[in-house]
Amino acid sequence: MGETLLETINSTADLKKIKEDDLPKLCEEIRSFMIESVSRTGGHLASSLGAVELIVAIHYVFNSPEDKIVFDVGHQSYAHKILTGRREQFSTLRQDGGISGFPKREESEHDAFNTGHASTAVSAALGFARAMRIEGKKGMAVALVGDGSMTGGLTFEAMDDAGNDGIPFLIVLNDNEMSISQNVGGVTRNFAKLRTGRMYNAFKRSLANSLDTTRYGRWLGRHMSSFKNRIKHFLIPNLPFEEIGFTYIGPINGHDIKTIIKYLRRVQELKRPVILHAITQKGRGYSYALENPEKFHGIAPFSIETGEVNSNKRKSCSEVFGSTLIKLAEKDKRIVAITAAMPTGTGLASFAEQFKERFFDVGIAEEHAVTMAAGFAAEGMRPVVAVYSSFLQRAYDELLHDVCLQNLPVVIALDRAGLVGEDGETHQGIYDPAFLQTMPNLVVYSPASMEDLSEMLAMALDRKEPSVIRYNRGTLPDRIGESPIEFGKWEIMLPPQKVTLFATGTLLPIAEKIARENHTGLVSMRFLKPIDRQVISQCAEAGTKMLVLEENIAAVAPLMAMYANPAVVRSAAIPNMPVSHATVDQQRKRYGLTEDHIVQMIKELEEM
Amino acid sequence: MGETLLETINSTADLKKIKEDDLPKLCEEIRSFMIESVSRTGGHLASSLGAVELIVAIHYVFNSPEDKIVFDVGHQSYAHKILTGRREQFSTLRQDGGISGFPKREESEHDAFNTGHASTAVSAALGFARAMRIEGKKGMAVALVGDGSMTGGLTFEAMDDAGNDGIPFLIVLNDNEMSISQNVGGVTRNFAKLRTGRMYNAFKRSLANSLDTTRYGRWLGRHMSSFKNRIKHFLIPNLPFEEIGFTYIGPINGHDIKTIIKYLRRVQELKRPVILHAITQKGRGYSYALENPEKFHGIAPFSIETGEVNSNKRKSCSEVFGSTLIKLAEKDKRIVAITAAMPTGTGLASFAEQFKERFFDVGIAEEHAVTMAAGFAAEGMRPVVAVYSSFLQRAYDELLHDVCLQNLPVVIALDRAGLVGEDGETHQGIYDPAFLQTMPNLVVYSPASMEDLSEMLAMALDRKEPSVIRYNRGTLPDRIGESPIEFGKWEIMLPPQKVTLFATGTLLPIAEKIARENHTGLVSMRFLKPIDRQVISQCAEAGTKMLVLEENIAAVAPLMAMYANPAVVRSAAIPNMPVSHATVDQQRKRYGLTEDHIVQMIKELEEM
Repeated sequence: MGETLLETINSTADLKKIKEDDLPKLCEEIRSFMIESVSRTGGHLASSLGAVELIVAIHYVFNSPEDKIVFDVGHQSYAHKILTGRREQFSTLRQDGGISGFPKREESEHDAFNTGHASTAVSAALGFARAMRIEGKKGMAVALVGDGSMTGGLTFEAMDDAGNDGIPFLIVLNDNEMSISQNVGGVTRNFAKLRTGRMYNAFKRSLANSLDTTRYGRWLGRHMSSFKNRIKHFLIPNLPFEEIGFTYIGPINGHDIKTIIKYLRRVQELKRPVILHAITQKGRGYSYALENPEKFHGIAPFSIETGEVNSNKRKSCSEVFGSTLIKLAEKDKRIVAITAAMPTGTGLASFAEQFKERFFDVGIAEEHAVTMAAGFAAEGMRPVVAVYSSFLQRAYDELLHDVCLQNLPVVIALDRAGLVGEDGETHQGIYDPAFLQTMPNLVVYSPASMEDLSEMLAMALDRKEPSVIRYNRGTLPDRIGESPIEFGKWEIMLPPQKVTLFATGTLLPIAEKIARENHTGLVSMRFLKPIDRQVISQCAEAGTKMLVLEENIAAVAPLMAMYANPAVVRSAAIPNMPVSHATVDQQRKRYGLTEDHIVQMIKELEEM
Repeated sequence: MGETLLETINSTADLKKIKEDDLPKLCEEIRSFMIESVSRTGGHLASSLGAVELIVAIHYVFNSPEDKIVFDVGHQSYAHKILTGRREQFSTLRQDGGISGFPKREESEHDAFNTGHASTAVSAALGFARAMRIEGKKGMAVALVGDGSMTGGLTFEAMDDAGNDGIPFLIVLNDNEMSISQNVGGVTRNFAKLRTGRMYNAFKRSLANSLDTTRYGRWLGRHMSSFKNRIKHFLIPNLPFEEIGFTYIGPINGHDIKTIIKYLRRVQELKRPVILHAITQKGRGYSYALENPEKFHGIAPFSIETGEVNSNKRKSCSEVFGSTLIKLAEKDKRIVAITAAMPTGTGLASFAEQFKERFFDVGIAEEHAVTMAAGFAAEGMRPVVAVYSSFLQRAYDELLHDVCLQNLPVVIALDRAGLVGEDGETHQGIYDPAFLQTMPNLVVYSPASMEDLSEMLAMALDRKEPSVIRYNRGTLPDRIGESPIEFGKWEIMLPPQKVTLFATGTLLPIAEKIARENHTGLVSMRFLKPIDRQVISQCAEAGTKMLVLEENIAAVAPLMAMYANPAVVRSAAIPNMPVSHATVDQQRKRYGLTEDHIVQMIKELEEM
């Protein structure tokens, strides 16, 4: 068996040697390589499968790194990594010391800008474009943006600014939604001038043919979500884009590489802001991913033959949150739930089905989610915003300005708190405890068991101040002790000794084992805010040395050190540095949140 | 002299008794009352003068508090306050214990939602609207939004969501820009169906007549800023709004109260999302404010006859920042400056004139400002984003995710850090030191003199990591000591004694006086991040008790307490609670940042 086309490519220069007619074959090779590799490592497969032709075409036409290719979110960048000298490292994807699942400037000069969160690409690319204009460079900035990212306000802010500037600048809109039929009317009316009507109709015909495949047809039916439809309504007509100064081209078939190349070359000549709208299929080239792109959005290692993952059968915190909220909402009609484009990830899918009128998916728009919740609360409702810790960062000001300063009873269900593992720097839930500490009126609950999580959610919804309930990715154990939650109270699980450990969440079971084996005291910090000054004073008076374990940048330990001063307080926590991808266990080991290291700290404290 | 119309109004019910024909007279009375009162208290005059007819009409047609009137920013709410039972308290505006300059739920049931920052109103109003629909209430949510707030991504996110919902919901767009002529073409084409073309032209004619006034004409010429024009291009055509599901009505004359009332009544019957676009004049009714609306945006007490304010002649920190940046940019072509709609407030107006190609005003879009700066830095430029502390809160994630995690050399010139006085809760610059502490790679500079500020700006631009230079509203003194800045080093100004004070910024001169009079040590904390561990260790070893003064929520003291543990560290700082309006001195007194209280803390520490 001879060398594949892909095996000849070790740089973008090699790619440009491939004949245009051979590119479809190359794309299929990239897909096979990617499926094979991700089945072993896990990763964001579906998005990357959908963007293969777009990425190949962009690298075929543009010259990175002189041209700056900026990804939005970055989930879809795998083909880019494979083509820019990282094919052989691709098997180390998302592993400790291996390559990142997102673009990383440290990895390659072709990764122009690091990403992870949505809606940053247009803004960053505009920075590149303006900088190159000032520098007198000829390079072009190209932002590859998924349709979901178009709902984020940051994208709007940047497009508004770019359009006004008139600067040469390209947004490739990777639109992987298939809710096409109902938008055709608007499209065909508006795009006649661009001669894309004909092309679009041809694309539609070829799509209709492929609907014969049963699996595909089912997929098409299921994924016409109202949210995505709404975006389509905004996107398809070209006028809004043209009004803010962009030339709109599209929609084109994002899997027809010759068409994409043709339009990219045309764009190069336009010398102004352009949006090229390409329709793609998320998961294209792998039937299980096509059928269930949400499952294959970010996936653990799986069997290529069956598409199945070895899954943990214990319920996740997200699921327990979701089912508890349903029970509470059955009794309390004031409860509404809000998500920013993550109904499944946050455990709200069943709530959404059962309480259709009381569920709101606002798109990738965390700021709006939180401020709208404040509006609900001001009217007397009990809104619950379910959001990942790293994405709540986007609504810092909304939480402070609209919720906390007004003391409104909004509940934030903060998922993926603490270390999250393979997604790396941008997704770690390690910043929130510090920034939440300073927000007036806010209470921060920290469950260490599934029972805690349910009780705390009920308690928060029963109270009148803003609250955050923060819990980790994955599961929590059943409750260790017998003690129910008391508002604002920590639990002394083992009486103070020479040393007392303070822990919560997933670290509590680890701390409990260490405490029992090493005869230390143990306190469960059930609230991160307010801290329980009574327990701290009690410990200070008992003369115990306090060792505070936090799976985040130290937030409670410094406050305890100040409050208990001059009692001895030590911190084991995540240091103030970017936390790159690895498993959670590897990350804990890196930063000393392991049994060995904690025991060593205890010994040192005992000998002090 | 008989009672004025205004004197008969103590509630919105009283307002509804006024005959429609008498409303213009009432509006003039409100304006006179407002000018008279604000000339004594200071306040946001120009915006509030422009919104009088809109507010009177809204209260005439709608029924607050059943209908929810949500202001954006809230600067323009004075007429609303005067009409809803606070006429007699209006003389206490922005004073300690008096009424707030912004809507406040604690003040009145007619203040549906607290505001201060831009772009929140549509999102909050949508929360009200959806809550009332679930509750089966009939009230309508009305958001009064200035045109500037339309550039904020949050407004876009909320409109996109509201439009899709189809919910009865009204945005009154208070558009106070006068760059009308160039938009007429688009307007007249698009609005024929609404019969507003005719009305609009009549409005334009009456406006043209008023151009005879010289002062007015000059004003018109000067204020056709490119930024506002861009927004107009987006706003005037109705299609974008209609595409995302809104019915667009306008533009109407925002000073013709009968017209406004007519359209508001029509909107009530539409039962769907509507945007009513009203053109107003900022500063209307007071010639000096009309002529110079920027000066009268937020103004100190002034003479009604001359329009003059008693001003402080010493240069502000913003001015020193601006002039230093010009000097540095003359030598370093990589320097660019970015502002989010505050070229004057942040001291960048002269830079903008001198370096037109290297200056970027992105509108009220702090997120985009920061992420675009990251793009500039990734391309090798040296971007400086000048922004107020309380508005940087809106770009928390962009600073963390796009700048700090990537370790890009973006400089944030953080103005209005610390207590800001009369603007109250939403504008205090007291949160940033805590949230900046956790951001990897970031350096936080804290100048205590004008020389510090200049040297630190040059130093930050010469280095390769992200940095924040935080300085207060108003001025700083000349340098007290002789010591130039050393990177990362605090300055021991007076050697450690029983007690040592740690201070920076405007608190340093206060601390210096106290230290000399009370024989304590004194350390100038020139960097908030990293903290100077060497100086802290030195003090700990010397056995001095450390008293840390911070005009923000304690951020350095807890870290020092943890690092120096078990040495004695005490904190005098702003507590974790909303800081309402008063003078800065009154606010310092409230929280114990006064000479008396600090001396008392020193005595207690000495006797410990």
